[in-house]
Amino acid sequence: MISLNFDKGKDGLLPAVAVDATDGCVLMLAYINQEAWEKTLATGKAHYFSRSRKELWLKGETSGNVQIIKDIYVDCDADAVVYRVEQLGGAACHTGHRSCFYHRVMGDRLAIEGKPLFDPQEIYKKA
Amino acid sequence: MISLNFDKGKDGLLPAVAVDATDGCVLMLAYINQEAWEKTLATGKAHYFSRSRKELWLKGETSGNVQIIKDIYVDCDADAVVYRVEQLGGAACHTGHRSCFYHRVMGDRLAIEGKPLFDPQEIYKKA
Repeated sequence: MISLNFDKGKDGLLPAVAVDATDGCVLMLAYINQEAWEKTLATGKAHYFSRSRKELWLKGETSGNVQIIKDIYVDCDADAVVYRVEQLGGAACHTGHRSCFYHRVMGDRLAIEGKPLFDPQEIYKKA
Repeated sequence: MISLNFDKGKDGLLPAVAVDATDGCVLMLAYINQEAWEKTLATGKAHYFSRSRKELWLKGETSGNVQIIKDIYVDCDADAVVYRVEQLGGAACHTGHRSCFYHRVMGDRLAIEGKPLFDPQEIYKKA
C-alpha cells in the first residue's frame, strides 16, 4: 500500500485532481481519505470522500459516470494526487458539464464554457 | 472582483491547480487565500499561500520560475481553481522536476518519471 501524508490535510483529507486520460483535461477536484485511497487502488475506480455527506463516495454511483483509473500520480510531498481516468458518460460535473471547471475568468466576470452533456434533473432523480 | 467560497476551505484556503497552458500538464497543487487570489488577478502571476511559512507566496520569487497566468477557471462550487500558466524556467517543482506529480503509482511502489530540470541546491541557496 502506497502511503500518503493524510496528516497534512485538514481532517485527514487530501485533494485529488481527476484529469481525462485522453487529453489531460482537468475534470474535477475532490477529496480523499485513507479509505477512499484504498478503495481506489483496490477497485480501479475513483473513490472520494464526500465532505457534504461525510461518507465514502464512489464517483458515478448515482449518475453512472464512473471514473476508471488509468494512472495515478502522487506529488512531491505525498499530499495530493492526480487520477488519470476514463470518464464514463463523458461528464464529471454534477451540472452535466464535462469538467467542473467550466467557469472561465473574463475580467470581472465568469463566462460559462461548453454546454452540459446531460440533464442533472434526469440523472439525479429524487427517490 | 470574482468571489470564491473561501468559507468552504479549512482556514480560508482553497486548492489551486496549476496546469501548463501549452499542453495541459498538471504542474502542481497549492493553496490560495483571499489575498493570494486578489494578487493573482491583479498581477497576472500565480500567487499562493504558503502553509509552511504561513505567508503570501509569489511562486518563483526565489527560483525565478514564475507562473504567468494565461487563463483561470473556477469550478462549479467556486471552491477550487485552475490556473493555466506559462511556467518560466520549465519546472514548477522545488525538486527541479517539471511537475510536482512525478511519482507514478506502479502496483505497490512509486516510480519516478522524468529528470529534474534544475538542481535545487543551486537554486535555493542558503542565505
